[in-house]
Amino acid sequence: MEREFVDWLRTLTSSDDRLRLGIGDDAAVMRWRQDRDLVVTTDLLVDQVHFDLASGVEPQRVGRKALAVNLSDLAAMATQPVGAVVSLALPRSAGMNLAKGIYDGMLSLAREFDCPIVGGDTNVHSGPLVISVTAFGTPAGDHNGVWQRRGAKSGDRLLVTGSLGGSILGRHLDFQPRVEEAKKLHDRFDIHAAMDISDGLAIDLARLIAESDCGATLIAADIPVSEAAHSVAAKSGRTPLEHALSDGEDFELLLAVEPATANRIVSEQPFDVTV
Amino acid sequence: MEREFVDWLRTLTSSDDRLRLGIGDDAAVMRWRQDRDLVVTTDLLVDQVHFDLASGVEPQRVGRKALAVNLSDLAAMATQPVGAVVSLALPRSAGMNLAKGIYDGMLSLAREFDCPIVGGDTNVHSGPLVISVTAFGTPAGDHNGVWQRRGAKSGDRLLVTGSLGGSILGRHLDFQPRVEEAKKLHDRFDIHAAMDISDGLAIDLARLIAESDCGATLIAADIPVSEAAHSVAAKSGRTPLEHALSDGEDFELLLAVEPATANRIVSEQPFDVTV
Repeated sequence: MEREFVDWLRTLTSSDDRLRLGIGDDAAVMRWRQDRDLVVTTDLLVDQVHFDLASGVEPQRVGRKALAVNLSDLAAMATQPVGAVVSLALPRSAGMNLAKGIYDGMLSLAREFDCPIVGGDTNVHSGPLVISVTAFGTPAGDHNGVWQRRGAKSGDRLLVTGSLGGSILGRHLDFQPRVEEAKKLHDRFDIHAAMDISDGLAIDLARLIAESDCGATLIAADIPVSEAAHSVAAKSGRTPLEHALSDGEDFELLLAVEPATANRIVSEQPFDVTV
Repeated sequence: MEREFVDWLRTLTSSDDRLRLGIGDDAAVMRWRQDRDLVVTTDLLVDQVHFDLASGVEPQRVGRKALAVNLSDLAAMATQPVGAVVSLALPRSAGMNLAKGIYDGMLSLAREFDCPIVGGDTNVHSGPLVISVTAFGTPAGDHNGVWQRRGAKSGDRLLVTGSLGGSILGRHLDFQPRVEEAKKLHDRFDIHAAMDISDGLAIDLARLIAESDCGATLIAADIPVSEAAHSVAAKSGRTPLEHALSDGEDFELLLAVEPATANRIVSEQPFDVTV
C-alpha cells in the first residue's frame, strides 16, 4: 500500500521554492534562511484520545487538527511555519481512504499557512489510528527572538486571543491556529511571555507563571467565556466559567504584557477573532 | 504522569551549545549554521511490527532503534545529525519505566552521535507502544550537496557498507547507523547515489535504480551474506542469499559509484565494518 500512497502524495506536494528535495528519498532537504534559528515542535494524536473516529468525525478534520496543533505551538513561539513531516500508524482494518482523507485535511491547512508537508512515514498496525506531526519554522520578524513561557513580570496583564471553553462541541477540531495573530502581535507589541492553551487556562496559566517565577490573579468576570462553554454547561451541571477554565483544547494564545501594552492591544484590536 | 516525566527528561537533556531553548516550552529552538540546508526525516515504530515487547526485548534497545533508523536515513543522505524530537504513545497498562527505558536507550545513542533530543510529546492510549522520531541535520562537508537515490549511472558499481540478511537475530535492533562512514565516504569519494537498506537489497536497489532511471545486475557470489543469514537459513529452508536479498532492516548503505572509485574504496577500506 505504501508505494501507491507515496506516489499519490508526491503528486500533491512537489512544488515549493524552499524545498530542494521532497517526498521520495530518505529525507527531505529544505533551504534554510540565512542566520535564522530552527524552531521545532512535535505532537502526536491518537484516536479515542484526541478525536473519535467512531463518532463519525471526518478524517479530513482529524488530519487538519493534527497539523493545526503543531502550528499552534509555533504561533505560541511567534514562529513562522516553514514545513512539516507526518507519520501515520493506520489501523489494519482501515483502507487507503482513511490515509487520503487525513492528508486531504492536512494539505488544505498546509496550503493555507504556507507550510508544505515535506516527508513522512506510513505504517499499518493492530492499534488505533496514530498521527504524529513535527513542524518547524523560523522566528518571525527581523531577529531570532521567540516568545517563551518565561518572561512574565509582576504587574503584567494577561490576554487571550479568543473565548474559552466548550471546545468539545467542535472547536477542538476546527480551531484556527493563531499564526497570523502571533505575527501581528510580535511585529507591533512587546510580549513578555506566551503559550497556547491546550490543557485549559487554569493548568496552562499555572505553567506560564511557574516558568516566569511569579503568581497570577484571575478576575472571573474578565475571562472570555465562549458560547460553547454555555452550551456545554447547560447539560453538565458545571458553570460556564468552570468549562472556560478547565476544558482545554482552546488553542488560543495566552499572553503576558505590561498594562500599557495590554490597553493598547485591547483598544487597537489588531485582528478579528471570534469571541 | 507527563509532568513528572518531562521533569526527568529535562534533567538529562539540557546542555548543548546549539540549543537555545530545549524541553519545557511549546517548541525547541536550535541555532542553525549559516548557509546550511535543513535535512529532515521521520520514522514511526510500532510494537509487534518493528519490535516485539512481548518477546522480552529491553525498552532500551527499542528506544535506541527508534532513533537509529532515523540516523540511518540521515547517513543515507550524507547528513550530519543536529537534533531530534520524539513522540510516544504508551499503552495504558505500561508504567513510567517503559518510557524511561525507551529514553535511556535513545539518549545513549543521541550522545554517541552528538544528536540531542530537543523536544517531544508523550501520550497514553489503548493501543500498542508507538514511537515516532523526527531527526534533522545539515549536509556533511563544505557545500550543501546531499546524496540522493537518483544519480546512479550506467556502468556504475554497487557497494554496501556491511553484510546483509538475518537481521531478525538481533541486528535489526542493535545496528550501527552509518553516519561516520557516510561522512568519510562523502569527504573522500564521489558517490553518485545512495540509500540505506531497510526493506532488503532486492526491494531497495529496485527503488534506487527506478529513481536513477537505469538497470542493475547483481552477481550472487559478490553479495556479502552475513553469518546471521546463514543461521536463519539453517532453519528456514531458504538459502542464505535469499535472506541477504530480502530480509531487510540491515541499515547498511547502498552506494553507486564509478568503477575506478569502487576499486579505490575497496582497496583503501576507509573504515572498519563487520562483514
